[in-house]
Amino acid sequence: MAVIGASRTPGKIGHEILRNIINFGFKGNIYPVNPHVDEVLGLRCFPSMREVPDQVDLAIISVPSRAVARVVDECGASGVKAVAVISSGFREIGQADLEKEVVRRARRYGMRLLGPNIFGLVYTPSKLNASFGPLHVHPGKVAFITQSGAIGISLMSWTILEHVGLSAVVSVGNKADVDDADLLEFFADDPNSSVILIYMEGLTSGRRFMEAALKATAKKPVITIKAGRTKRGSMAAASHTGSMAGSDEVYRAAFRQTGVLLASSVEEAFDWAEALVADFELRGENLLIITNGGGAGVLAADASELLGLRLMGMSPNLRKKFRALMPYYGSVENPVDLTATADGDDYYGAIHAAMGSDEVDAVIAIYCQTPYTDPTLIASRMIKAMEGLRAEVRKPLVICGIGGVEVEKALRMLEEAGIPAFPTPERAVMAMAALFKYYEYREEVMRKTSEN
Amino acid sequence: MAVIGASRTPGKIGHEILRNIINFGFKGNIYPVNPHVDEVLGLRCFPSMREVPDQVDLAIISVPSRAVARVVDECGASGVKAVAVISSGFREIGQADLEKEVVRRARRYGMRLLGPNIFGLVYTPSKLNASFGPLHVHPGKVAFITQSGAIGISLMSWTILEHVGLSAVVSVGNKADVDDADLLEFFADDPNSSVILIYMEGLTSGRRFMEAALKATAKKPVITIKAGRTKRGSMAAASHTGSMAGSDEVYRAAFRQTGVLLASSVEEAFDWAEALVADFELRGENLLIITNGGGAGVLAADASELLGLRLMGMSPNLRKKFRALMPYYGSVENPVDLTATADGDDYYGAIHAAMGSDEVDAVIAIYCQTPYTDPTLIASRMIKAMEGLRAEVRKPLVICGIGGVEVEKALRMLEEAGIPAFPTPERAVMAMAALFKYYEYREEVMRKTSEN
Repeated sequence: MAVIGASRTPGKIGHEILRNIINFGFKGNIYPVNPHVDEVLGLRCFPSMREVPDQVDLAIISVPSRAVARVVDECGASGVKAVAVISSGFREIGQADLEKEVVRRARRYGMRLLGPNIFGLVYTPSKLNASFGPLHVHPGKVAFITQSGAIGISLMSWTILEHVGLSAVVSVGNKADVDDADLLEFFADDPNSSVILIYMEGLTSGRRFMEAALKATAKKPVITIKAGRTKRGSMAAASHTGSMAGSDEVYRAAFRQTGVLLASSVEEAFDWAEALVADFELRGENLLIITNGGGAGVLAADASELLGLRLMGMSPNLRKKFRALMPYYGSVENPVDLTATADGDDYYGAIHAAMGSDEVDAVIAIYCQTPYTDPTLIASRMIKAMEGLRAEVRKPLVICGIGGVEVEKALRMLEEAGIPAFPTPERAVMAMAALFKYYEYREEVMRKTSEN
Repeated sequence: MAVIGASRTPGKIGHEILRNIINFGFKGNIYPVNPHVDEVLGLRCFPSMREVPDQVDLAIISVPSRAVARVVDECGASGVKAVAVISSGFREIGQADLEKEVVRRARRYGMRLLGPNIFGLVYTPSKLNASFGPLHVHPGKVAFITQSGAIGISLMSWTILEHVGLSAVVSVGNKADVDDADLLEFFADDPNSSVILIYMEGLTSGRRFMEAALKATAKKPVITIKAGRTKRGSMAAASHTGSMAGSDEVYRAAFRQTGVLLASSVEEAFDWAEALVADFELRGENLLIITNGGGAGVLAADASELLGLRLMGMSPNLRKKFRALMPYYGSVENPVDLTATADGDDYYGAIHAAMGSDEVDAVIAIYCQTPYTDPTLIASRMIKAMEGLRAEVRKPLVICGIGGVEVEKALRMLEEAGIPAFPTPERAVMAMAALFKYYEYREEVMRKTSEN
């Protein structure tokens, strides 16, 4: 790959991107291009694309906007397959003609163009971080597509803090050529991505997006954060990216029809992604809640009912299994209350009993920090229980852990073991509800398909 | 104060509570009571309350349930003013008569009784932590009342993790005598508490609660988490604390009439508390949003409109002030977009311009982490700006900081300076909306009062 506009000056975009590419460990050849220097960050620098002695797949372009068209020509003439135009100064500041001209030239050579006005792209399976965002993105299976630059970069940093694993980050910017529909097609077939999460202000072609979304959601979940859903929000979006945010009703209908999950907040979108990226299959609607604190069970039961999740009834057989794991004042109703004395072995037993039962389709296990029990020990027993079951059981388990710094550590352990874990009952239930919503949609689609 | 049932055995409740009282730094005299030992945790231990050579204000009782009535008698005979009964084994397991008898005896001596079935109480202004919850509660001005034990203790730990400052934690348990209404009366007049936050499953007397709530909300905000709002939730609550959770409609109406803010989740309740505990006064409805990222501004504008907050129009004078703080491609509409290059001085200037203007009543300032700017430096300039203004300006400022570990640190700095700060635009707007809701309620009450 090539970085055109590579710079020796720290802080300059053409420097930061090249540094991220090198430091994130990209294994292919990297060719900095800049006519004024011989070397950048220890790499030999070439005066122009024409001098680069190799076939380049992707050229990152970070030069002033007025020079982009010429650089695109050089890339085309040198056989580059795709370009990502970091540079701003196009349609977002009224220079729509300049932008059209750049796209026209790229197409003349059969090159796809990402951008302009983007902060770059990341693809962790190739150890590629060609962005001027943060370096140490966590590898994982969530593909994150963002129309906004500042929120995209800041959310990249946030995913590091929150240990969200990403397969890709793609800044789409002005979407002059490559748009959400193209990326949906790509990530739908990408085995390294299990969930696609899109921050979107507006779409250029609603119909193309819907076609691509329909195909993508048949394979994996697609989550959107749609900004500009209100009058004031869409006014702000128009002045920000020049997007026509469009009617909220139209977007909602389009998302519903195509199985795209519309999140109501940034936090919800990433919570949903955490639950949906886990290696689960939902086969029925029998939800069981297990808790060590009655109050937390009540809150989870409330949240479940409000989100349309049905708490299953308890058979004599299930009651008997749980009764053996609790003192006499526990409860074998749903939510099952193991009581505050429940330790790692009790949680181990409860998760085995629930996940191993044919009656149960999905489990939310809640742990409230108590003075008698050790959160990280309980987490490790939960993980052990799941490891024992994983070969045969892929039904969803979502954990809620309420407490302090030790609980935070326990939640991290669970997340690292591929078990979604949240700090409040409501967030755990909302994440489970997203799982139900997606699998119900997909089942409905499969049913219709098999009927036709 | 006395701890009856004080124990030398770590892990036992009578040991843990005494240890917390000592280690949290209570300055009054502490009298452990236990007939079987002479000394506990370095303190002389007395065989019974009768031998304690001092006037005791509060006795913590942690003895088996069948011994509680006798111990209450001893306390009464010794002139104790109030008792907190930690012991369980009363109405929650069907022993309602035993509970009534205990209350009857306490009343005979004119003592108030907290509990039974509680994890204790905390009052940070007196350096009192008489609970078997976590020790190092952050002192602050939120009074937290909880009916549930496990969720109460685990949320205490959570407040430490989240740096929520507490004036008090009161576990009310079975509410055999002291109930939410009594505590509302106390904390309404407590100068050390600015916000009252209640986790509630059911009420014994709705009318008394409403009378107390009406008086309390005229003085300070009251936030509730009401568990058991749905059919399944109230069934779970009945089996948990034996509470009749009651109709959600009735509670909603009661809360609305009395100005009690009903949170829809644990997270929301504590976010609201963070905003409402700050030293602000809201005088009008002109809300201004300032951002360095267009997308985050759009999300905040959406959330504002959805929650009924009106983004103010921009006067020529305000536009001029902000224009001077941004590059040409910034926006002086509301949300004001300082653009991604905005540094500490720009935020300082923007907060001064907004908070210092008579046209603006409330400000949400958003910072998206960028590669060009330092989150903690920006936080310190924001704090400086507010310090300069605080003497004369008490209008609300809420911060949203989106990003990684540096932003998390910046948010902590802001919170420690008394400025509410949140990690997503939606949470910042929701917190501001709670402020608007409370002040609108209070203004309406004042208007009605002055009319009569």
